[in-house]
Amino acid sequence: MELLKERIRKDGNVKEGNIIKVDSFLNHQIDIALMMELGKEFKRLFENENITKIITIEASGIAVGCMAAQYFQVPVVFAKKSESKNIDGDVYRTSVMSYTHGVEYTVILEKRFLSAEDRILIIDDFLATGKAQFGLLDISRQAGATVAGIGIVIEKGFQGGGDQIRKDGYNLHSLAIIDSMEHGALRFRDS
Amino acid sequence: MELLKERIRKDGNVKEGNIIKVDSFLNHQIDIALMMELGKEFKRLFENENITKIITIEASGIAVGCMAAQYFQVPVVFAKKSESKNIDGDVYRTSVMSYTHGVEYTVILEKRFLSAEDRILIIDDFLATGKAQFGLLDISRQAGATVAGIGIVIEKGFQGGGDQIRKDGYNLHSLAIIDSMEHGALRFRDS
Repeated sequence: MELLKERIRKDGNVKEGNIIKVDSFLNHQIDIALMMELGKEFKRLFENENITKIITIEASGIAVGCMAAQYFQVPVVFAKKSESKNIDGDVYRTSVMSYTHGVEYTVILEKRFLSAEDRILIIDDFLATGKAQFGLLDISRQAGATVAGIGIVIEKGFQGGGDQIRKDGYNLHSLAIIDSMEHGALRFRDS
Repeated sequence: MELLKERIRKDGNVKEGNIIKVDSFLNHQIDIALMMELGKEFKRLFENENITKIITIEASGIAVGCMAAQYFQVPVVFAKKSESKNIDGDVYRTSVMSYTHGVEYTVILEKRFLSAEDRILIIDDFLATGKAQFGLLDISRQAGATVAGIGIVIEKGFQGGGDQIRKDGYNLHSLAIIDSMEHGALRFRDS
């Protein structure tokens, strides 16, 4: 998606350790006009998939998940990263290693919000090694739901998670794939 | 807001300890059509306030913050609950006690995303004792920003945070105020 790539080139900030900061428009401050365009693009890409629900993971997946959901007119369910006294009932659980925070945490999603009848679209802001996405895929498998698509805003292609997910046969679309960012120079796939 | 009160009556689940669960439509699964109506209502309530930015706090404030922001066409900034290696630069910090999780945590917001020129609307899904809101007000004070409004989806009026914030002179609107929920019976203010 050219609009997004241009924005990453303009406002993305490459840091040591293969980190790209896009927190001025995607995951700390959110450019809502851009987010609406991302939502419309996901709708265009997955509109024939009969999506019944969008699944994402807190925190920064929520914004893009909701902005997309309004074009599909389906509910969003976001997996939660910690247990609280507000969670009860049967939950799906999985374990996710956070690349950003360097810790492993439990992710939960209440069973009544995801079932074998659902055709889900998994949405997230970032895909790197794929840890968060594999966690959501594990939860979807537990629920027996059909993963009709996976929509990612920015994929760090050189970290391999996306290629693994494609090899596993999933219908993955990333709106921008960064294939390298050495010495601060961004190179996008297909460009 | 009648639509919201009806939904809380229908799908809200009162639990022991003054907890009301609205996770089937507000903060785990998100009813996106309802969320759009909440966003429009916030726009109606604060449209003359010349809002330049919406401030909220992760995680469940993000959905309602973004859905409101698209009607104001302003950016959203969400305060983050934990430090990660993705945060650098100067940050505002404050401390917030979580009613839900029973722990105190640090909330941060990067300084470059909030300034004395901003007229902000603070948006959140819940207001009970007001801990999260007082944290965001503290950050706004550090930034010198003008708090032009505070918009809450559900206020638990009997826990006092909202009345304190009104007494402090802030322009607070809650779309539904629950004044009591004893024995599972919800009583809304002004109804």
